[in-house]
Amino acid sequence: MILGIDIGGTTTKLGLVKDGVVLDRVRIATIGHTDEHRFADAIAEAARVLIAKQVGSRLDSVGIGAPNANQLTGIIEMAPNLPWKHDVPLATMLTERLGTRGVLGNDANAAALGEWRYGAGIGFTDLLVVTLGTGVGSGFIVHDRLVLGSAGNAGELGHTTLVMDGRPCTCGRAGCLEAYVSIRGMRQTYADLGGDAEVLKVDGVKPIAEAAMKGDQEAHFTFQWTAQWLAVGLANAVAITGPGRIVLFGGITQSGELLMAPLQTAFRKALLNIYQGRVDLVFSALPDDDAALLGAAALTTL
Amino acid sequence: MILGIDIGGTTTKLGLVKDGVVLDRVRIATIGHTDEHRFADAIAEAARVLIAKQVGSRLDSVGIGAPNANQLTGIIEMAPNLPWKHDVPLATMLTERLGTRGVLGNDANAAALGEWRYGAGIGFTDLLVVTLGTGVGSGFIVHDRLVLGSAGNAGELGHTTLVMDGRPCTCGRAGCLEAYVSIRGMRQTYADLGGDAEVLKVDGVKPIAEAAMKGDQEAHFTFQWTAQWLAVGLANAVAITGPGRIVLFGGITQSGELLMAPLQTAFRKALLNIYQGRVDLVFSALPDDDAALLGAAALTTL
Repeated sequence: MILGIDIGGTTTKLGLVKDGVVLDRVRIATIGHTDEHRFADAIAEAARVLIAKQVGSRLDSVGIGAPNANQLTGIIEMAPNLPWKHDVPLATMLTERLGTRGVLGNDANAAALGEWRYGAGIGFTDLLVVTLGTGVGSGFIVHDRLVLGSAGNAGELGHTTLVMDGRPCTCGRAGCLEAYVSIRGMRQTYADLGGDAEVLKVDGVKPIAEAAMKGDQEAHFTFQWTAQWLAVGLANAVAITGPGRIVLFGGITQSGELLMAPLQTAFRKALLNIYQGRVDLVFSALPDDDAALLGAAALTTL
Repeated sequence: MILGIDIGGTTTKLGLVKDGVVLDRVRIATIGHTDEHRFADAIAEAARVLIAKQVGSRLDSVGIGAPNANQLTGIIEMAPNLPWKHDVPLATMLTERLGTRGVLGNDANAAALGEWRYGAGIGFTDLLVVTLGTGVGSGFIVHDRLVLGSAGNAGELGHTTLVMDGRPCTCGRAGCLEAYVSIRGMRQTYADLGGDAEVLKVDGVKPIAEAAMKGDQEAHFTFQWTAQWLAVGLANAVAITGPGRIVLFGGITQSGELLMAPLQTAFRKALLNIYQGRVDLVFSALPDDDAALLGAAALTTL
């Protein structure tokens, strides 16, 4: 039995995983703790309650997916979207508290592992999983192995440059894929196109999707443009690692065919001829929470 | 003893390799043969002459690097720069003629293997090797293994899109890195900047480099712009596979500091913060012929 932990900007999810199934789960707040030590205490306490309910089962290991996590060091490195901006050695902190091996990994890599082991990526030796949400995360599987890179921080498709001297990005540079294709990027595109200010009063991409369904032209074009940008970013990734499948995951994919229909067309147009017909593009089939929890648990089996 | 073969658009090079050293070598023409079967005959004949001179040594295998070669199928697929536009199963054709196992691989992948095993990439678990010449080729090493992709044709950094709706590329699409950073791309940049028509009467990049050394402003700016474009393309590759080193190889690198000085500056500026100081950028230290021949031979040991 493995404890999977998915740390997000506001909520942290814990799940007990056995044979690819989430047996039980709980959520705690990521924010509101005095410091990272009290946060680790809260995780450990919630975990103990979960474990105690599984009578007769023993905890083998703990896998933690977190933003800006470096798998080689076990450290969350200066995460802009977490309450602690400094380096946090969370793998060691949870190993100490729970008395079993803790493995930390990037949240997008964890999601990629989840899709590869249990979701739409099963059986692919080479796979790309892209998370479309507040940011754009990615995890690459190459030759049946998660790509970590020489410094443990590979797989940042969201921060490949799509437009030289383009939109400012939260990373401090300009023109990143994430500045166009994330929730924030899509909302900016809708605003730039002169979209309805009323629509933007509600958070997220859902209000733009609802406007598009009602015939709002700017909302419709927002999905068209987002699809074009994402298609080029994905085609560039294909030209580098040559995956057989791309799985899209995260909040924006709830827009369904509004995004997928123009994306399939734009993706085929953007692909180099030698990759045509050799890579497909699908949405995740796993519930969001499960991919993240199963993937976090799978980090311990790498 | 391994026979390494490097097939180029006009010349094919053969070399006998033992323990990472090229014992003897010869060149034959790639063009001027009736068909691909006579070309294979010519390779086999030249190989037999080379082998006969190595008294007491036995040929173990044959490694062939060629443009548009698919390592998984052993086939050269519709190569636009070779005399035969259809699929050529050269691995099988040479296996039959030389009576020993032939392995075919992409020429840029072969060069990457050569640099990794014997050149500037020794000891790097994650490496990127980029060939800057008539085209822009690339080979990625990830987790101590050459990246082939699900269909055997990964590693086409030259055909990642750098500028959406940008310059036309030979691949039929627009805005590829290769359309800006190759010999042809640099010559177009110089022409677009209003460079001296006399300079462009001589083939290649060398005349532009010589003009730059003499104070030609357009030639100088051509190197500055090329460095900016290449820096973004390399930074995008780093964000995906996270190499510890990038090795540049091929004709354009003979421009030396004219390219490297602005490139180092632009590359550091283009890199996402988490990769700063974790990847360096160097020119190949091997003679061009050797990287290609040693790499072709190394294809047989994958």
